[in-house]
Amino acid sequence: MILETLRTEVLEANLELARRGLVVDTFGNASGISRQENLVAIKPSGVPYDTLRPEDIVVTNLEGKVIEGKLRPSSDLPTHIALYKAFNAIGGVAHTHSCSATAWAQALKEIPCFGTTHADYFRGAVPVTDFLKQEEIENDYEWNTGQAIVRRFAGLDPLSMPAVLVAGHAPFCWGSSAAEAAHFAWMLEEVAQMAMATLAINPQAQPLTDVLRDKHFLRKHGASAHYGQK
Amino acid sequence: MILETLRTEVLEANLELARRGLVVDTFGNASGISRQENLVAIKPSGVPYDTLRPEDIVVTNLEGKVIEGKLRPSSDLPTHIALYKAFNAIGGVAHTHSCSATAWAQALKEIPCFGTTHADYFRGAVPVTDFLKQEEIENDYEWNTGQAIVRRFAGLDPLSMPAVLVAGHAPFCWGSSAAEAAHFAWMLEEVAQMAMATLAINPQAQPLTDVLRDKHFLRKHGASAHYGQK
Amino acid sequence: MILETLRTEVLEANLELARRGLVVDTFGNASGISRQENLVAIKPSGVPYDTLRPEDIVVTNLEGKVIEGKLRPSSDLPTHIALYKAFNAIGGVAHTHSCSATAWAQALKEIPCFGTTHADYFRGAVPVTDFLKQEEIENDYEWNTGQAIVRRFAGLDPLSMPAVLVAGHAPFCWGSSAAEAAHFAWMLEEVAQMAMATLAINPQAQPLTDVLRDKHFLRKHGASAHYGQK
Amino acid sequence: MILETLRTEVLEANLELARRGLVVDTFGNASGISRQENLVAIKPSGVPYDTLRPEDIVVTNLEGKVIEGKLRPSSDLPTHIALYKAFNAIGGVAHTHSCSATAWAQALKEIPCFGTTHADYFRGAVPVTDFLKQEEIENDYEWNTGQAIVRRFAGLDPLSMPAVLVAGHAPFCWGSSAAEAAHFAWMLEEVAQMAMATLAINPQAQPLTDVLRDKHFLRKHGASAHYGQK
Repeated sequence: MILETLRTEVLEANLELARRGLVVDTFGNASGISRQENLVAIKPSGVPYDTLRPEDIVVTNLEGKVIEGKLRPSSDLPTHIALYKAFNAIGGVAHTHSCSATAWAQALKEIPCFGTTHADYFRGAVPVTDFLKQEEIENDYEWNTGQAIVRRFAGLDPLSMPAVLVAGHAPFCWGSSAAEAAHFAWMLEEVAQMAMATLAINPQAQPLTDVLRDKHFLRKHGASAHYGQK
Repeated sequence: MILETLRTEVLEANLELARRGLVVDTFGNASGISRQENLVAIKPSGVPYDTLRPEDIVVTNLEGKVIEGKLRPSSDLPTHIALYKAFNAIGGVAHTHSCSATAWAQALKEIPCFGTTHADYFRGAVPVTDFLKQEEIENDYEWNTGQAIVRRFAGLDPLSMPAVLVAGHAPFCWGSSAAEAAHFAWMLEEVAQMAMATLAINPQAQPLTDVLRDKHFLRKHGASAHYGQK
Repeated sequence: MILETLRTEVLEANLELARRGLVVDTFGNASGISRQENLVAIKPSGVPYDTLRPEDIVVTNLEGKVIEGKLRPSSDLPTHIALYKAFNAIGGVAHTHSCSATAWAQALKEIPCFGTTHADYFRGAVPVTDFLKQEEIENDYEWNTGQAIVRRFAGLDPLSMPAVLVAGHAPFCWGSSAAEAAHFAWMLEEVAQMAMATLAINPQAQPLTDVLRDKHFLRKHGASAHYGQK
Repeated sequence: MILETLRTEVLEANLELARRGLVVDTFGNASGISRQENLVAIKPSGVPYDTLRPEDIVVTNLEGKVIEGKLRPSSDLPTHIALYKAFNAIGGVAHTHSCSATAWAQALKEIPCFGTTHADYFRGAVPVTDFLKQEEIENDYEWNTGQAIVRRFAGLDPLSMPAVLVAGHAPFCWGSSAAEAAHFAWMLEEVAQMAMATLAINPQAQPLTDVLRDKHFLRKHGASAHYGQK
């Protein structure tokens, strides 16, 4: 079995999505990439989380061809691949249908950076993609979904904003590994829920100033990070 | 004991409703039909879920007469029978009082198809029945509830829309089996909750276009389905 | 130990309140009455639920004097006694600070009978008391709380409406036994949550007609009840 | 190991924050102070709750210098110290990012005292600090956060109001011990959630009168307290 460590990490990231209650039914998937070998490990399509084993994780190349594994890969694989191709610094992708983040995606509203919990992970409002055109839906839908994300990130740094809301669909997150992507998917759901509650209390709520937002973001990310035991 | 397999499936579907938190108290029931023998297996009335055994499941004919079983069938049996008679393609029915779906039924509002999670299961807005007339409430109430659903589905395909909200009451769902009906009842609650959250974020939220909606629905249903391991 | 059966029932009802998540901290209590002996068994004051034993349940007479038990009774005892004295048909009382029902009490709004889940337990809108006057707060506060409930129920049948919202405080429920009172406290929280969600979806939502409401209420209560296995 | 009892109490308070679901990820921390030795025991920075042991708790002096412990203290330590220096009567501090309380902090709205659950713990509306100025964010941010709290409490009694919302951030609570601070953090989340629900039901909801508020607050706190078994 090739890429055994990566498979195990990807399996664990998928289980984390399920444990955190971020996936509805079988809708959610995490993947990881070996940049050295240009191979992606991803959850198989439509398999319940509680029966997943390392050997069920499907390994494909960057054209989406299965290299090892008996099952079909997640139907969202082309979206993951589009992100790996466009965002060179990332090592993992996680997709969920978590309730609050999905509601923002359905509402076609960016999640404003209302507080420091948000700023600790996402440097600004979490963006929403445009809807796909009819021909993009009808052909290569999942690949085009990835392209819509990539277009939306023109001028944005994917490491400073490791999440996006696909219009009318749900969030995708990414990070240095499958584990980090899954972790950001959880944090996104938390801040999405807090942001809904914030608006319910005060419909005129305002985002943080850039100074306070960056104080928190840069405390945990980048060259001057000093949070935790590092 | 006749229909032992069907009883076990129906028992399991009822337990699934309870495990998913879809039933309030003893309010919820799933049934299955043997089309070959025209017999229905259904939860007994008012029995707590945690003590249900296969032999407690009641078997009736399509006139609602108990064929086997010592307990009284769910008082909603006539509604289930009305659906089995009108919708030939279905094999199971599930009824819950799950919080968010029931709220939409109480609000007399269809659940709009705000996103792809919804579209993966329900091809459009989940409809609401009309209220029953006074004489329909006073006589054969549960049968008439079924008739109100059937009337609402004039021109609708019950396999493309396997759920309905009974006005002022709660949802009914159906599928190829009791298990699928229970599964749709769970998915309905998820999309009902997401739709509430969507409106809270953006009261002007719009449903998906038909093209995107059908892309998702037809990916999982019908002749060209290609989701999962099939 | 006198009234051992009643103590055990009261203990179990208190544990049920905790298991259903209806109490905040130690704020909640259930009691039961022996009408034959005019003795009340109630939770001790401020004792955590997870350490409660039958011998901790305090037995008092209808003047609130402790007859057996080493602990002080719940500070809400006088409210319970006021209800036992005014409502002869009841055998148990339960008080919680469950989130949704308490929110309606804080909002000073009756819970409208928006659906059949509500109507299965409560025949109409769940009423709210008036606020107490300053002198009623300063002296015999808990007894006066009971009197405010009793005044609010002038002309109402406590068996058809086994719950009330004390203004700015929280709900009290009652029933034929401590177990039934605790069960109604759970059902009240469920319908309070559904009613909040109903208003969020449709601020103009209307209560059920009396005909549909009574169809459901009388199916489970009164002379012509025919729900369950009875 | 010095201050073993205090460390154990602080560990337990941190675990209680996690058990009650009040912390997001590793964002939350409780500390306790030995007034005799002027030493603070606090959670280490960024360590997951489920692996915390007493020896991981960091002991510092009131200048923030680590006296014992191999890990770095929580980055919020200077805020805790500012509170210990300004509020002489307190023995513990707890900081969480619990969802509802954080939403009020993000909305820049005080939590009104809508009911007796609130009044049992907090004598009036839970206040919100001002935002820090840019220079206060850029230098000694965590210490200045504490100073913003202290400024907001000019004229307020920290024992009557053992909680604050830091603008755009999250709540801090305090009490006679780390355990009590953690307990108040839990109660704050409960009343924050109830207050949100109250406003959702009735946007014109009014706070309790001072008489009713103080009846409840003084029943549990101060010289004439008579709640529980004391």
